[in-house]
Amino acid sequence: MDALKQQVFEANMALPAHRLVTFTWGNVSGIDPTRQWMVIKPSGVRYEQLRPEDMVVVDMAGKVVEGRYRPSSDTATHLALYRHYPSLGGIVHTHSTYATAWAQAGRAIPALGTTHADYFFGEIACTRPLRRWEVEGEYEQQTGQVIIETVGPTEALLRPGVVVSQHGPFCWGRSPDEAVHNAVVLEEVAKMAWLAHSLNPTPRPLDTFLLEKHFLRKHGATAYYGQPEP
Amino acid sequence: MDALKQQVFEANMALPAHRLVTFTWGNVSGIDPTRQWMVIKPSGVRYEQLRPEDMVVVDMAGKVVEGRYRPSSDTATHLALYRHYPSLGGIVHTHSTYATAWAQAGRAIPALGTTHADYFFGEIACTRPLRRWEVEGEYEQQTGQVIIETVGPTEALLRPGVVVSQHGPFCWGRSPDEAVHNAVVLEEVAKMAWLAHSLNPTPRPLDTFLLEKHFLRKHGATAYYGQPEP
Amino acid sequence: MDALKQQVFEANMALPAHRLVTFTWGNVSGIDPTRQWMVIKPSGVRYEQLRPEDMVVVDMAGKVVEGRYRPSSDTATHLALYRHYPSLGGIVHTHSTYATAWAQAGRAIPALGTTHADYFFGEIACTRPLRRWEVEGEYEQQTGQVIIETVGPTEALLRPGVVVSQHGPFCWGRSPDEAVHNAVVLEEVAKMAWLAHSLNPTPRPLDTFLLEKHFLRKHGATAYYGQPEP
Amino acid sequence: MDALKQQVFEANMALPAHRLVTFTWGNVSGIDPTRQWMVIKPSGVRYEQLRPEDMVVVDMAGKVVEGRYRPSSDTATHLALYRHYPSLGGIVHTHSTYATAWAQAGRAIPALGTTHADYFFGEIACTRPLRRWEVEGEYEQQTGQVIIETVGPTEALLRPGVVVSQHGPFCWGRSPDEAVHNAVVLEEVAKMAWLAHSLNPTPRPLDTFLLEKHFLRKHGATAYYGQPEP
Repeated sequence: MDALKQQVFEANMALPAHRLVTFTWGNVSGIDPTRQWMVIKPSGVRYEQLRPEDMVVVDMAGKVVEGRYRPSSDTATHLALYRHYPSLGGIVHTHSTYATAWAQAGRAIPALGTTHADYFFGEIACTRPLRRWEVEGEYEQQTGQVIIETVGPTEALLRPGVVVSQHGPFCWGRSPDEAVHNAVVLEEVAKMAWLAHSLNPTPRPLDTFLLEKHFLRKHGATAYYGQPEP
Repeated sequence: MDALKQQVFEANMALPAHRLVTFTWGNVSGIDPTRQWMVIKPSGVRYEQLRPEDMVVVDMAGKVVEGRYRPSSDTATHLALYRHYPSLGGIVHTHSTYATAWAQAGRAIPALGTTHADYFFGEIACTRPLRRWEVEGEYEQQTGQVIIETVGPTEALLRPGVVVSQHGPFCWGRSPDEAVHNAVVLEEVAKMAWLAHSLNPTPRPLDTFLLEKHFLRKHGATAYYGQPEP
Repeated sequence: MDALKQQVFEANMALPAHRLVTFTWGNVSGIDPTRQWMVIKPSGVRYEQLRPEDMVVVDMAGKVVEGRYRPSSDTATHLALYRHYPSLGGIVHTHSTYATAWAQAGRAIPALGTTHADYFFGEIACTRPLRRWEVEGEYEQQTGQVIIETVGPTEALLRPGVVVSQHGPFCWGRSPDEAVHNAVVLEEVAKMAWLAHSLNPTPRPLDTFLLEKHFLRKHGATAYYGQPEP
Repeated sequence: MDALKQQVFEANMALPAHRLVTFTWGNVSGIDPTRQWMVIKPSGVRYEQLRPEDMVVVDMAGKVVEGRYRPSSDTATHLALYRHYPSLGGIVHTHSTYATAWAQAGRAIPALGTTHADYFFGEIACTRPLRRWEVEGEYEQQTGQVIIETVGPTEALLRPGVVVSQHGPFCWGRSPDEAVHNAVVLEEVAKMAWLAHSLNPTPRPLDTFLLEKHFLRKHGATAYYGQPEP
């Protein structure tokens, strides 16, 4: 568990290093291999003061089992996603600027280039707005449900992130570190798509064969980008 | 008074650290608990040279009671706001880039997302332009009056800032530090709203129940974001 | 002359510090009190390698009288301006991003706010494009002439800069340091005006009484911004 | 060969220093004077971990002749360009933000100002999208072919870069260092053109005489910018 706390701590500290967060507006979690416990950032604690031992351990019902702080207020969203998608090992939420702008415009981020296709196998979806009963009830858990409704039954790692309408991005990966990596990518492709949209509001969609080429060049059995696993 | 000077000094130094000011284009003030004296940055002194003892103490009529420098040229604006709103403990004025762009466009910053709703309970208003007699007379005091006219009789902390038409943002809080925090937030939500506006000039307004959920999650008796007060 | 070289050196080094230049795309000059010699950056020398003694001294006809380097390729532009406007003590040229965008769009930067009015007493003009004979002949001197044609017979310090069509900004001041200060301001107000234009392409022009209030609050006999001269 | 590895290493390290790359999204190569071997960055290795001895040497058919890593996945693109254009000594590929936005919009970057004309003798072309057989076959080599088709039979150093449709920029120069220099310029002029386009979607094209003046002021036999070669 200490190793997971350290991983989750480092992944959280990577958010301000990549300029994805202002103040405390972001959080990263990780799940242990038995999928019984989740480790997450404490709520509202400043990054400058954060230490590995401040990470909070909760069970899959959200009960704190270790740690002196309250867990992130978004804990129930993270738990809903881990319960539904067994391939997820890390989740990150931020209010990164360009991704949040697409969320506030209520629009999916279109796949306009190979930078996008290297990581997301198609557009980055925008959820529907939450309904009154969802917001007034178990809001954070319902946020998880609306993400699940949007991602659907496909393998979540094929498109490792969405933007929640009028809110901001949630990303994931096989580990906390990979989730943060995908959050950096999402923000950068959100910026590129925003800039391209201003030059050409109806750009040519990416051909499926180019999307497949780039995604599969980096991911899956036939990948040839990077170095072979040691 | 030395403690307040130190607080006001640190809050002023936070402005360049958060990239909210160019040269000397900003100032922060604080008021003592008896509401008899205000401490404010001296006018036109460079941040690199500023020391806690350079802060200027004025009485509520604007007369300097301590300090070797002239107070900020915006002193009368700060005083007008403190006199009118007893809940204010700190005020900040900047020409931060995106907030000023909304002011120059003469438009309120709409509440488009939860980042905004976490801090501002509705849109961030833009004042009307000042009239000739207001500008040619007691200009800085009239700037305070037009802010008061815009905020109206509601609790000022519910929406802790406005943009003054063709000028820039004024923010406030229960302390100098909180006022600066709100100025950082205002600039960031101004940027997000600007980006969203370019993608979608008529975005869906935030539902009232979502606005309430987020504002009250962070503020007031039922807040559950962050850690309990020690 | 060594003191002036030091001033011009420091003013040149302020350009990369304020992020106004990429590579060697900028230069600052100063003139000696007798207005017989101008000191200017050498052409194409990298800022990291620049030393005070590398500054080049030329006479008012552009002949090098001291220094082992060629002077800036824009030397003739600077000289034309010093000869025409006796109040100028420093001149700066950059390709700063937002100011250059206005130049490339062929548009003056409108006075939309008090940030602008604090330094420029009206819009920042854009010159006409240069004609073939002007470009193919004494190009750099003609660039100076077209700036003079644009500024006209008014006191040049009232609006201490223009953008040259399809090129970029030239700024000036009573000293090299003040010229750089004005170049920083021009870039910042160019950015604010660009952002405001995107929100509102036909913004309300600044009322003359507000323009006068702000300009005169900072400049001239009735100024009350800042501290009294020691 | 060690000297070339060092040059290529330093040119690669200049990419993050100039903020042209996120993660490992970029690569620089150089060719030896006999044009038998190319040195290039290894695929997917982080810049923080890169050392001169990690550079990979390949022959002109792409076979690794030295180095323990796989070469960049874009190796075949670089080789195609070196084989076709004998004046190229260095090539760089990035996904720099503004250049990629133009590529995603499917548009050439117009020559709108002298900053552009100082380095590119006309617009920066955008290739056509690749066809299915080109993507599904020898994709990276075909990317080189479509660049060659776009640049055509003219001297490649007159316009030292293009954007590949829906992908991003490729730049070149007489050395790896010059190629990176041109990549920095391309990104900056892409940003300036993007900003100008937003103010004025149909700006005045640069007059040919101004384009020639600026390009030839910096390049060729009659250049007078900078210092004489030692």
